Amino acid sequence: MRLHELTPAPNPRRVRVFLAEKGVAIPSVQVDLFAGANRTPEFLKKNPSGKIPVLELDDGTCIAESIAICRYIEALHPEPNLFGRDPVEAAQIEMRNRQLEFELMGPVGIAWVNGPVLAQMAPGMFRQIPEALAGAEASIARFYQRIDNELASREFMGGDRFSVADITALCVTDFATDRVGVPRDPGLANLARWHAAVSARPSAKA
Amino acid sequence: MRLHELTPAPNPRRVRVFLAEKGVAIPSVQVDLFAGANRTPEFLKKNPSGKIPVLELDDGTCIAESIAICRYIEALHPEPNLFGRDPVEAAQIEMRNRQLEFELMGPVGIAWVNGPVLAQMAPGMFRQIPEALAGAEASIARFYQRIDNELASREFMGGDRFSVADITALCVTDFATDRVGVPRDPGLANLARWHAAVSARPSAKA
Repeated sequence: MRLHELTPAPNPRRVRVFLAEKGVAIPSVQVDLFAGANRTPEFLKKNPSGKIPVLELDDGTCIAESIAICRYIEALHPEPNLFGRDPVEAAQIEMRNRQLEFELMGPVGIAWVNGPVLAQMAPGMFRQIPEALAGAEASIARFYQRIDNELASREFMGGDRFSVADITALCVTDFATDRVGVPRDPGLANLARWHAAVSARPSAKA
Repeated sequence: MRLHELTPAPNPRRVRVFLAEKGVAIPSVQVDLFAGANRTPEFLKKNPSGKIPVLELDDGTCIAESIAICRYIEALHPEPNLFGRDPVEAAQIEMRNRQLEFELMGPVGIAWVNGPVLAQMAPGMFRQIPEALAGAEASIARFYQRIDNELASREFMGGDRFSVADITALCVTDFATDRVGVPRDPGLANLARWHAAVSARPSAKA
């Protein structure tokens, strides 16, 4: 088994943190997105979306999409449980993980694609729309405010214990702050408390 | 149990088709998005995202996000299986369902929000960006071409049998064609064959 990924990108980190929580090691292959290594015919056979991460099994079967990879790992290594122990808990974790993906990671991706850091790193890679950047920054700020409110009454993103939803949230908030240049408002105290707690776990270094 | 939804919207239809495949009936409550019924304090307690569908359980627990609802239904009613029978099949179905969500449903949503039909139905509901509409239409056309290529070598979206990924694809392609005004190219023969097959299932009328 091997993981096709790129260390600084946020989605591969989700899988690495998940593997660290499980205590599972999988060899990794770096895919240089900026050199177009994800658009070669060979890579597109592994994932027609041209995206990372991709988990390649020993028989050549490829699994793309971070959460599909993580759920596959959970099926092989059920403990510690990170997707929910019963139908209601699993539904709440999946709901919140998806809200983080669509309502935070989505706008962070838009801010990245339309923002100044990528424009400097890879000029012309995307046609940038300044209005889209402004809209995304407003969406991110609103979502952080909302999640800060929610974290007043529960300890973690998915409920009262650590789950895959916290891994999504950690990787996207760190990417937004450290790479996109759209930081959290430090006045959001519940969000800051949550971030300090999940950042202190050994898996956060993955 | 009751399902908060709106009949013409694509995401509630995903849940209705899923329920029809399972042979399960759940009473529904219409949420009038155009009258702001999804932004009331009462509704935001059920789902802080202000989105439909939401499945409300008898104890008041609310599950938002179509796929979280469908997976919960699958846990209560395992047959017919729609999420995969083993870890590899489940991973492939989840991967393809997510690619349909991010790479087809995402652009279709952008085309809807920035397109002429919504502008006429609900003037000023969203600030429209014409460039975003053009980019979304190009993304949709590329994705349809890609999926047509893939359907040359497998019968359904998720693999060789009907799954939740086909339900996502059916609801988004019908919404794009019938409501957004961005139809499939009828020359994509594999996609047309797939669409005819899934549309002929009794669940497609849900």
